[in-house]
Amino acid sequence: MSRSCTDVRPEIHDFTPYSPGLSIDEIRERYGLFQVIKLASNENPLGASPQVQKALQKSASLAFRYPQSGNPRLIQALAAHYRLPEDMLVVGNGSDEIIDLFIRILAVPGKHTIITCDPCFSMYTLQARLAGVAQKKIPLNPDFSFNWEALRAAVDEHTVLIFLTTPDNPSGSCPPRDEVLAFAASLPPHVLLIMDEAYMDFADSPGIASVIPCLAEYPNLAVIRTFSKSFGLAGMRVGFGIMPPRLADSMRRVRLPFSVGVLAEEAAIAALDDTAFFEETLKTVREGREYLKAALEKLRCRVAPSSANYLMFRLPDDCGYTAQNVVDALLTRGVIIRPLKSYGLPDHLRVSIGNATENKMFVNTLGNLLARKGRES
Amino acid sequence: MSRSCTDVRPEIHDFTPYSPGLSIDEIRERYGLFQVIKLASNENPLGASPQVQKALQKSASLAFRYPQSGNPRLIQALAAHYRLPEDMLVVGNGSDEIIDLFIRILAVPGKHTIITCDPCFSMYTLQARLAGVAQKKIPLNPDFSFNWEALRAAVDEHTVLIFLTTPDNPSGSCPPRDEVLAFAASLPPHVLLIMDEAYMDFADSPGIASVIPCLAEYPNLAVIRTFSKSFGLAGMRVGFGIMPPRLADSMRRVRLPFSVGVLAEEAAIAALDDTAFFEETLKTVREGREYLKAALEKLRCRVAPSSANYLMFRLPDDCGYTAQNVVDALLTRGVIIRPLKSYGLPDHLRVSIGNATENKMFVNTLGNLLARKGRES
Repeated sequence: MSRSCTDVRPEIHDFTPYSPGLSIDEIRERYGLFQVIKLASNENPLGASPQVQKALQKSASLAFRYPQSGNPRLIQALAAHYRLPEDMLVVGNGSDEIIDLFIRILAVPGKHTIITCDPCFSMYTLQARLAGVAQKKIPLNPDFSFNWEALRAAVDEHTVLIFLTTPDNPSGSCPPRDEVLAFAASLPPHVLLIMDEAYMDFADSPGIASVIPCLAEYPNLAVIRTFSKSFGLAGMRVGFGIMPPRLADSMRRVRLPFSVGVLAEEAAIAALDDTAFFEETLKTVREGREYLKAALEKLRCRVAPSSANYLMFRLPDDCGYTAQNVVDALLTRGVIIRPLKSYGLPDHLRVSIGNATENKMFVNTLGNLLARKGRES
Repeated sequence: MSRSCTDVRPEIHDFTPYSPGLSIDEIRERYGLFQVIKLASNENPLGASPQVQKALQKSASLAFRYPQSGNPRLIQALAAHYRLPEDMLVVGNGSDEIIDLFIRILAVPGKHTIITCDPCFSMYTLQARLAGVAQKKIPLNPDFSFNWEALRAAVDEHTVLIFLTTPDNPSGSCPPRDEVLAFAASLPPHVLLIMDEAYMDFADSPGIASVIPCLAEYPNLAVIRTFSKSFGLAGMRVGFGIMPPRLADSMRRVRLPFSVGVLAEEAAIAALDDTAFFEETLKTVREGREYLKAALEKLRCRVAPSSANYLMFRLPDDCGYTAQNVVDALLTRGVIIRPLKSYGLPDHLRVSIGNATENKMFVNTLGNLLARKGRES
């Protein structure tokens, strides 16, 4: 059959169909609810910082201006904040764009491969497929830690990139920094190790820390960060990469010149400056994590140790519900959490750490559900 | 020599180095100026719409929320505004992202080619190169109109996409709609014709009009639009594509799920609703275009006919300045216009239509420059 102008590349055919999901307003309306809490996307439990909101209001009149290509003011602010040279930094439309650019600048389609864990954040897989680049997925250990030996063994002459998320998504598991650095040192010089530290700010265990201060010593190490979590800017779409200057130069050349807009840039600069909000966020997440873990364990759930702003857990085996049952039942009661079927973990659930009120509402609603089933049986 | 982890794909090597240019504030400071006007990026001469500014201020507190994947509310608003089915619409991080996605979903690297004019908007070239897709560039006619015969002759079995900008950038030239439709009808069914109508709202000549109402009859025609110009949202980064539903479905599957953020979506919805601002914008641009064209011709410049919100012109041959001289001299006097060397037109200049004050300041400043040289010689 001859080709039509709507015949897409073969790589595109089996992409998961697009499903936007219901908005909070739609859920409220559909189930006749007064209050809906969303603990599904690991957003900031305190909302948007007051300084960010002021900055946005102040710059609303600038919405008609193109940003400066490459967002040099934000680059300067990041360099000062993280004590890094500017030439190691690239900003993007969320860290999603940085992930895409790493693959596009480094991996030759049909020739090079990337390595990730299994399961992993879906964006690595989607962008590699879109780029026509093969991916090797290395299973996590049964306790959701990285299998360093298997990762190392998977590296061959075609490998260009390894993406690891620390703390990991969806488990919250996080290796000590020394393990990451030892792994980086063990890699051949043609392999770039990219640590996606989207959730690293929330970690507070001994030995678990960002590799950012070590980048100068490890020439094959790069870091991805986002403003969506600890900085509370998921809706503004700002992420950044920290990488060897040669790579940053290439990435800046090929990125869409205006991918981070004027208000997004102002919001990110204000977020870096609002240290009080940032510290309060970390305190809220760490306290909420302790509270939720204890409460879930009291309900006989099995909760994975987490260094992030979410907890992965399993229901008690004898509770009479599947994980999806609980997601659905919580939804009709105004509590949105994340099923993990798309990660290949159909028996697991993920709940974001909310503020104190949200956490209590989630625990009470889940507790009532489980107790009701207990009475029924 | 063995490969290093900073060795990028060969396609990336010769991308133009990144240069952000000076911001308005930096120019003001550098040249000790009180006022700087920017007529270089075809931004809205009236700034941001009042309704948009209100919407941004009202939604600043939502900056911490992820947008709904695919931005269904904005899709609905666009469908209503343009009387189109929702399944033909895809929104992106500026029309830049839509351009990139068209190439990525349709063109197989190393096999397919795209066709553009020469000169053309740089984004088509950059994204094709990044995707590893070859580009045929067909010279414009000497009057900057499209060479339909040459474009048609360039099509072969490898062609998947043709990008045309109407009104064209940088000339402002625009073919009658019937010519575009006749060209679309002449193409084989495997070629998609993409009309980039970034500036179409500013056209007001008989016969020159958008092809949007004709899309249902032309299955190999698609349109790209942006909120950056007539809607005054360059800083929010919102564009959209209108295309056959099969293609829209594929594009939605592969696009970054959150590439248009929460405030960008709110701003775009408000901009569609603010018809008073939109109409005032068109009036300002059309009146300013007449005024500027007459004033430039009075200064003996040769001005290309324009249906857009900018004018392309050449200085009088005997004025004693090169085009770059004038760009530089205007800059030190607080007027930023666009040299066209990067389009391969080193003798041409492009000035955006500003508001009445800006247009006068530009004309007076340029007039003084040319008169001074006249006195010197």
